[in-house]
Amino acid sequence: MGTVDKRLSDAGLVLPTAASPIANYVPAVRTGNLLFISGQLPLKDGKVAFEGHVGNTLSIDQGVEAAKLCALNIIAQAKSALGGDLDKVMRVVKLTGFVACLPGFGQHPQVINGASDVMVQVFGDAGRHARAAVGAPSLPRNAAVEVEAVFEVA
Amino acid sequence: MGTVDKRLSDAGLVLPTAASPIANYVPAVRTGNLLFISGQLPLKDGKVAFEGHVGNTLSIDQGVEAAKLCALNIIAQAKSALGGDLDKVMRVVKLTGFVACLPGFGQHPQVINGASDVMVQVFGDAGRHARAAVGAPSLPRNAAVEVEAVFEVA
Amino acid sequence: MGTVDKRLSDAGLVLPTAASPIANYVPAVRTGNLLFISGQLPLKDGKVAFEGHVGNTLSIDQGVEAAKLCALNIIAQAKSALGGDLDKVMRVVKLTGFVACLPGFGQHPQVINGASDVMVQVFGDAGRHARAAVGAPSLPRNAAVEVEAVFEVA
Repeated sequence: MGTVDKRLSDAGLVLPTAASPIANYVPAVRTGNLLFISGQLPLKDGKVAFEGHVGNTLSIDQGVEAAKLCALNIIAQAKSALGGDLDKVMRVVKLTGFVACLPGFGQHPQVINGASDVMVQVFGDAGRHARAAVGAPSLPRNAAVEVEAVFEVA
Repeated sequence: MGTVDKRLSDAGLVLPTAASPIANYVPAVRTGNLLFISGQLPLKDGKVAFEGHVGNTLSIDQGVEAAKLCALNIIAQAKSALGGDLDKVMRVVKLTGFVACLPGFGQHPQVINGASDVMVQVFGDAGRHARAAVGAPSLPRNAAVEVEAVFEVA
Repeated sequence: MGTVDKRLSDAGLVLPTAASPIANYVPAVRTGNLLFISGQLPLKDGKVAFEGHVGNTLSIDQGVEAAKLCALNIIAQAKSALGGDLDKVMRVVKLTGFVACLPGFGQHPQVINGASDVMVQVFGDAGRHARAAVGAPSLPRNAAVEVEAVFEVA
């Protein structure tokens, strides 16, 4: 069991099965030492666990939970792309978090902290990343949150 | 005629003239082996061919057509940046697709598949990319779709 | 005083204090020769100087001012990440500008030109970048604009 796998286990975090896109794109592409990971939804057992607008039909806390699920799906995709070895993750470089919300909502950072916290919990200091958090009127399958990532890998 | 040019021709796809931004930015910047391509609108003969909100004033099919046009404009910009030689494209690394839509819309992936399909049609397996598809309340010039890209180039 | 610092000074531009995120992310991450800079808000003296929707509660000109502030905050973060030496910036590779707006707004490019112009004013030709400008129903702290960046650095 790798160091990162042990951290996941110690934290009681279970990676979801990496979802396969049913289209002409892939979950992750490596170029040089960068791994670009496709935007991940808050999937649990293959279903979107949080639908709707944060700050309206969903609470901030539910948005945070959705962002955590997006982060776990990102890590699952990275693990799959790295042949199962998460210890090859040198750095979480960048997260971009999209929050489904209505005009007037301003707490995107609090929501996306759910994803950021998972990264640091799992990768330690290597999990500290650059980030943007923004709003969207809606997201695929009416998901509450979508997060994409760039990782530096060995 | 290069391999990729031939594929374009065989598929009956005609690249638009690469549009020049009238501002202090450029259509594409190369850094190392990465080519960052500016967000492209569904331009045809210099005009936005699809305005409005997908799922509201525009159908999904029209959104798909808009995404295809964005993809062709991306390829045109890449060709221009690569001195006319599209065979220098090693990999389509990442597409980010923005769909103009209203709250409640959830079919962004179907729309952006229009762009993803063009990439695989033109570049083959090298056209398979990481991707994010998200919504926006509006896009420049009221375009229905905007797609930006990162390519790995020789 | 470095070349870029002198340009800033000659242009009468004053960099804000680089804001520290109070969360598990960081203002900028370097990987290889790329510096990914977190999304910056139009902060002045630590406060969001422009709140609301461009084209509705804010004019285009106010949006442009907001975008300029975002650009100055990006440069401040880059300076901090580069140990104070902005002459290490080889190229502004990419800006992504998010404009808080309502459906029907189409002038995102004019707004984000505020950020693009600052980059060229400060870095000269090295400041010409790839760019995407898109809309968002709302942004963190109800900011009118958010801009993130990728720089190539020495």
